[in-house]
Amino acid sequence: MNWKTVFKIQGILLIIISASMIPPLIFSLYYNSGDTQEFLYSILISLITGLLLFLIFRSDNDLRPREGFVIVSLAWISAALFGALPFYFYGMSGGSYIDCVFETMSGFTTTGSTILIDIESLPKGLLFWRSETHWLGGMGIIMLTIAILPVLGLSSNTLYKAEVPGPMKDKISPRVTDTAKLLWYIYFGMTVVQSALLMFGGMSLYDSLCHTFGTLATGGFSTLNSSVAGFNNLYIEIVIMLFMYLAGINFILHFFLLKGKFRDFFSNSEWRFYTATLVVSMIIVAADLYSRNDYSSLFACLRYSSFQVISITTTTGFVSADFDKWSHFSKTILIILMFFGGCSGSTGGSIKQIRIMSVFKFSFNEIKKMIYPRSVISLKFGNDLISDTLFKNISAFFILFISVFALSTLFLTFRGYDIVTSFSASIATLANIGPGLSRVGAVENYAFFDGASKILLTFNMLLGRLELYSVLILIYSLFNPKKFR
Amino acid sequence: MNWKTVFKIQGILLIIISASMIPPLIFSLYYNSGDTQEFLYSILISLITGLLLFLIFRSDNDLRPREGFVIVSLAWISAALFGALPFYFYGMSGGSYIDCVFETMSGFTTTGSTILIDIESLPKGLLFWRSETHWLGGMGIIMLTIAILPVLGLSSNTLYKAEVPGPMKDKISPRVTDTAKLLWYIYFGMTVVQSALLMFGGMSLYDSLCHTFGTLATGGFSTLNSSVAGFNNLYIEIVIMLFMYLAGINFILHFFLLKGKFRDFFSNSEWRFYTATLVVSMIIVAADLYSRNDYSSLFACLRYSSFQVISITTTTGFVSADFDKWSHFSKTILIILMFFGGCSGSTGGSIKQIRIMSVFKFSFNEIKKMIYPRSVISLKFGNDLISDTLFKNISAFFILFISVFALSTLFLTFRGYDIVTSFSASIATLANIGPGLSRVGAVENYAFFDGASKILLTFNMLLGRLELYSVLILIYSLFNPKKFR
Repeated sequence: MNWKTVFKIQGILLIIISASMIPPLIFSLYYNSGDTQEFLYSILISLITGLLLFLIFRSDNDLRPREGFVIVSLAWISAALFGALPFYFYGMSGGSYIDCVFETMSGFTTTGSTILIDIESLPKGLLFWRSETHWLGGMGIIMLTIAILPVLGLSSNTLYKAEVPGPMKDKISPRVTDTAKLLWYIYFGMTVVQSALLMFGGMSLYDSLCHTFGTLATGGFSTLNSSVAGFNNLYIEIVIMLFMYLAGINFILHFFLLKGKFRDFFSNSEWRFYTATLVVSMIIVAADLYSRNDYSSLFACLRYSSFQVISITTTTGFVSADFDKWSHFSKTILIILMFFGGCSGSTGGSIKQIRIMSVFKFSFNEIKKMIYPRSVISLKFGNDLISDTLFKNISAFFILFISVFALSTLFLTFRGYDIVTSFSASIATLANIGPGLSRVGAVENYAFFDGASKILLTFNMLLGRLELYSVLILIYSLFNPKKFR
Repeated sequence: MNWKTVFKIQGILLIIISASMIPPLIFSLYYNSGDTQEFLYSILISLITGLLLFLIFRSDNDLRPREGFVIVSLAWISAALFGALPFYFYGMSGGSYIDCVFETMSGFTTTGSTILIDIESLPKGLLFWRSETHWLGGMGIIMLTIAILPVLGLSSNTLYKAEVPGPMKDKISPRVTDTAKLLWYIYFGMTVVQSALLMFGGMSLYDSLCHTFGTLATGGFSTLNSSVAGFNNLYIEIVIMLFMYLAGINFILHFFLLKGKFRDFFSNSEWRFYTATLVVSMIIVAADLYSRNDYSSLFACLRYSSFQVISITTTTGFVSADFDKWSHFSKTILIILMFFGGCSGSTGGSIKQIRIMSVFKFSFNEIKKMIYPRSVISLKFGNDLISDTLFKNISAFFILFISVFALSTLFLTFRGYDIVTSFSASIATLANIGPGLSRVGAVENYAFFDGASKILLTFNMLLGRLELYSVLILIYSLFNPKKFR
């Protein structure tokens, strides 16, 4: 293992983390919210540790794929450990460092599960930092590092592959650095537009930024205890819904859109599948709510169903209605959608639309093959042929995802939590959604879990965000150090 | 579609079904239990219909694989429809034919889910028939047909493949007819041995036969309302446990054992995985029960945990303790085991040990490939190489199984049943287990479901027993009649 490069990159990352604590520091000073010192200390500690690592170690810029995976996993762990400092210094959640790391990992991985019982009691600086971690993690902290510092040079391709979600790692530009920059520009542009639209709807700059971060990163942290439902404002819901939807689309498609390549956008089969999934689910859930007289009008049913379907499918986790009170049927639809997630290359988590689509398509092909054994049927999306290698990668991911989900559920039931709470907390963290059902339902939080369970759930979020492989390879390397020399 | 052959084979099958109603008729006469007429009518109707179909249609003995799948699916449906007649004529479950078909399909598919609220109120003849359907379905009704009537000739290979469970369709003898005969001989021999052992423990011939049928077919119907728990006899539990374990093993391995080929038996990797799964689960569940003081002694914990783990994993569904009252953790272990099932070529249902084993092994291989991209890693079991084609078949099965399970759960929640009831009823029927959790728990039954849900659950059992493909191909053929000319 090329440890020098590993540590050097951790150093660069910590410097970026410390710099990214400046905006919340400014809000803290502006609102005089009493959390200024916490940020100053955290910035200093991260900066000094980062500089030391950066200056001591020399990178030799020649990374093997497995090292890329280890670097990326460690970078996300460092981000959570150092990002948790402001919360810890403030004494959040009774000064439990585990809780602070849970909250920060939930932020960076854009999960949005919270251990806070009273969100609104947190000072404005900390709440801003909490939402900002979403934004940083949404497009990817390694991507940000690559975009800002071309110093990583050759290695960046390996790192890019380890962080970008989805089975196909498309690039817009032949150079990874340029791709990273372009994607971050688009992300930044969308941030400006959504914040402006939310301010136009009456939100303060502060609230609009926080909610934009939660939306575009498909994170789900809000500044209100009752999440988006607290605004009870149709306009705000529509803006957030629209941008959650956009955030769940591959950002490379947004690039095509900006370049006027409408054909490339609309012919994308993953986008079509994603949109169809959303529309069908929205209509079914709305019909179910309406048939049970859950809300006064059909319009209200459509309003809440569409918001919740988009929020859960894109793995955002904003809440505009307490869906834990909906029928078993609607809840089961939401549970199934939790496994779908966003498109590859989006900020959404979970299994991803293209993987679900390809395992379905593949299974139907297998049936056809049994009917016509002599025919040659290949797996295609639009004009793209899915190779055997890619298909195997997708199957393995699907199986590992289900296995990790089952093991996590088993662990939580072992700690004594009931089955619905355990399995919905597992999928809500592993798929980076946020809220689940029962004790982790729409209006609940994760505070009641014991320490061991919180560590597991934190780990789930990391596994989910980095799509299992990176973290599993890190674990493998820790248990087989000799093979990793 | 070669409809002539399809109907001719249905005819043969119905003649066999009518003949197999003679043993319950004898018990009915012996016990004078008042259900003699019901059997006489049913035998006549099945026999006449069978003879008519057999005599009218001429088979041309040249089946394509797809026709094999259709024949097998239809045969199982006919078996359930005609096998339900004695129950229907008796007026079981208020004379609901849906309920009678549910019970019969549950019997033939060796599921063991019941709609009976008071099992013991049923006359002895009907109860015997109920258990006998397990025995007939366990080794396979088409296999029985092939073994008894070599008239099927060339086509038998196609039919064998469509009915035998598991991804690899091994044969003991080059001729399918001989293989079918040998397997049925072994099955019959085990039936004699187990019945004798149970009678030695104090059971009547009647009870011992009924419970042997339930055990060797991994079915689970008992003659008592409280299932095996009703005997409260350690010796009986041990005999049943042993034979459930044996029934979950590939019967081809039993053939090796009889031939003295111990090496072939003990080196079989699926058998090893199956045994390891059982032992580990038993110990964990026993430890959990003991730590929670659920039973008075460690021995009692081991007794109930081992019985239930074997019963659920082999998909038998006999109950020796109300496991619905166990901890969330132990229940979750049982739920996970429900997806494992028996070995391929056993009478056990569900996904099958070899498929679970190969998807795990495959996923770990994929991780290794990411670490060492240049290495060539092939999927092996013992000395057998798993080909790409076979692996694809296994993945597709895994994905289809999960999808059907999710759709079934969704349908039941749509009918208003709670989530735990819906998903455990879905897996309990699809994996041919019998009891689930919550409202379909160990001491409950399926009577409360509405008609549409019962039809779905009946369909699940068929899908599970025939491992999806046959039934899915039948459905496909109904919707695409032109392609099936």
